[in-house]
Amino acid sequence: MTCSEFDLIRHFFAGQCIQRVDVPLGIGDDAALLAPPPGRLLAVSVDTLIAGVHFPLDTAARAVGYKSLAVNLSDLAAMGAEPAWVTLALSLPEPDEAWLTGFAQGFFDLASTHSVQLVGGDTTRGPLSITVQVTGFVSQEQALLRNGAQPGDGVFLTGTVGDAGLGLRLYQQPSDASDASNDATMHLVHRLEFPTPRVAAGLALRGCASSAIDVSDGLAADLGHVLTASGVGADIHVDQLPLSSAYRLLASKNDWQTAVSTGDDYELCFTLPAGQETAVLAGLDCTCTRIGEISADSGLRWRDADGQQLALDNTGFDHFTFGKPQ
Amino acid sequence: MTCSEFDLIRHFFAGQCIQRVDVPLGIGDDAALLAPPPGRLLAVSVDTLIAGVHFPLDTAARAVGYKSLAVNLSDLAAMGAEPAWVTLALSLPEPDEAWLTGFAQGFFDLASTHSVQLVGGDTTRGPLSITVQVTGFVSQEQALLRNGAQPGDGVFLTGTVGDAGLGLRLYQQPSDASDASNDATMHLVHRLEFPTPRVAAGLALRGCASSAIDVSDGLAADLGHVLTASGVGADIHVDQLPLSSAYRLLASKNDWQTAVSTGDDYELCFTLPAGQETAVLAGLDCTCTRIGEISADSGLRWRDADGQQLALDNTGFDHFTFGKPQ
Repeated sequence: MTCSEFDLIRHFFAGQCIQRVDVPLGIGDDAALLAPPPGRLLAVSVDTLIAGVHFPLDTAARAVGYKSLAVNLSDLAAMGAEPAWVTLALSLPEPDEAWLTGFAQGFFDLASTHSVQLVGGDTTRGPLSITVQVTGFVSQEQALLRNGAQPGDGVFLTGTVGDAGLGLRLYQQPSDASDASNDATMHLVHRLEFPTPRVAAGLALRGCASSAIDVSDGLAADLGHVLTASGVGADIHVDQLPLSSAYRLLASKNDWQTAVSTGDDYELCFTLPAGQETAVLAGLDCTCTRIGEISADSGLRWRDADGQQLALDNTGFDHFTFGKPQ
Repeated sequence: MTCSEFDLIRHFFAGQCIQRVDVPLGIGDDAALLAPPPGRLLAVSVDTLIAGVHFPLDTAARAVGYKSLAVNLSDLAAMGAEPAWVTLALSLPEPDEAWLTGFAQGFFDLASTHSVQLVGGDTTRGPLSITVQVTGFVSQEQALLRNGAQPGDGVFLTGTVGDAGLGLRLYQQPSDASDASNDATMHLVHRLEFPTPRVAAGLALRGCASSAIDVSDGLAADLGHVLTASGVGADIHVDQLPLSSAYRLLASKNDWQTAVSTGDDYELCFTLPAGQETAVLAGLDCTCTRIGEISADSGLRWRDADGQQLALDNTGFDHFTFGKPQ
């Protein structure tokens, strides 16, 4: 990449409007200089999105820019951390003004919403790939971990699950359909491309939830991580799973498998000690549903409305390959 | 990538021996939790290396692992920061045990040398690409910036320049040669693959150097950044440029152009106020050479032993493309 092309790219990322007081030196020297708040820990998460692996090659640039930040903010939400700084390593085959404009718009719109400042980055020529690292703040006593779930705790989910997974399937297999199902498909694809990181919910859960994780690999896999880390089990009632009306319209009847084993919803799954439920849920800014309870018996059990155990596949979501990477 | 393959990769990075007390929670939850030292700033740098762009496709895995960390530590050195934490986003076409073993060895050998702990990462299937982010500590008063060079300051370079650039050229155009030149070529290629980040020198320069930068894009380009940021110019004496004996043996006579315009040497270029030279240079752990002086007249001028101006190309180093990226 020539210097002028590099400068072109830099230009697209110079226009952010967030300027934080804890960034004494931003982009432009050998390193950024950042002033961490006294007495708090830094929560750090990094994720890579690769074209053709994590998103279809023809995904709109704005969605790619948005989602590359959203998936990282979701990790901070799952720790109860307040987002602050972000870095962006962007590799792309060639400088493409229209693509960069869209990418930057999606990225900075979400960054502004959460008062996150871009403090560094690297832009290289190569196959389309985005690595984002976010840093947030949380006190040691209030950080939400995976290992604190206790028998008797309730298991909760923000929002709805299965939307992104079903949206991806419909995206890959478009069909002639009615207006109603077109609207529903658009809703599900939007959930896939523009997931809402549950930052405010994560902050509200600090010091309350006994464990938390974000649902990136599917509820079965991610709740499984919590159960393993906590040394407990869980009974989950599939008829209590929060499903969107679009999901209910377009999924096969009683398709619990898609809801529990597809990923990319970026909802929070967390546990609450008995008795705290009403007060905590009243403080959340999004819908939240009780889906089951933690048990001393290890393992993750899916139960129908009659309490009978269902055989669902609990293996994790493997990112689809959308064609040969660029 | 299936879960078992992912676990395989995780296995290679679980074996690090550095466990810092300022890492209350490392790899394994949604985010790492880090405890920054009170009263200091964080210096943060991120760099991506892409196969076929930043290193030849057949580069040994150990060299790739080493260099991916070294180039970032070099940025911290140029800020006078003490390295602490690192994250690694690794994309590779398929899990390859031998390659991962070599990569991890190169990465962790250097991390151990500088007491740097790997605190997070992401491993994805895709074209071979490595994004590393390092964080170090420095006080606001002592950070080395690019914008402090003053007329009358001396300009200095650690180590030697041009080695990596010439080494790359020889790597790409191997030839029958004598034992002496084979040894020299090996030295230059080693400099390309295993550059020494000048961390200790950077720490020694805190509060002394008026500006500093690391030479990643070539002396002409990088010193140019310092001059622009500081609003000054410089006169550099090419006969005072520190050149290795291997470079002198294998470069064309008076080939100053390669020495000043190729990158990847990762030496420090810094400026010192007049009178501080002797004391400061005595405190460095590496060779250091005075190559010129800062002037109030803007522009970067190359001068021969007679003081005559030489016409050298000052444009930056553009990373070579070593073949089609994987």
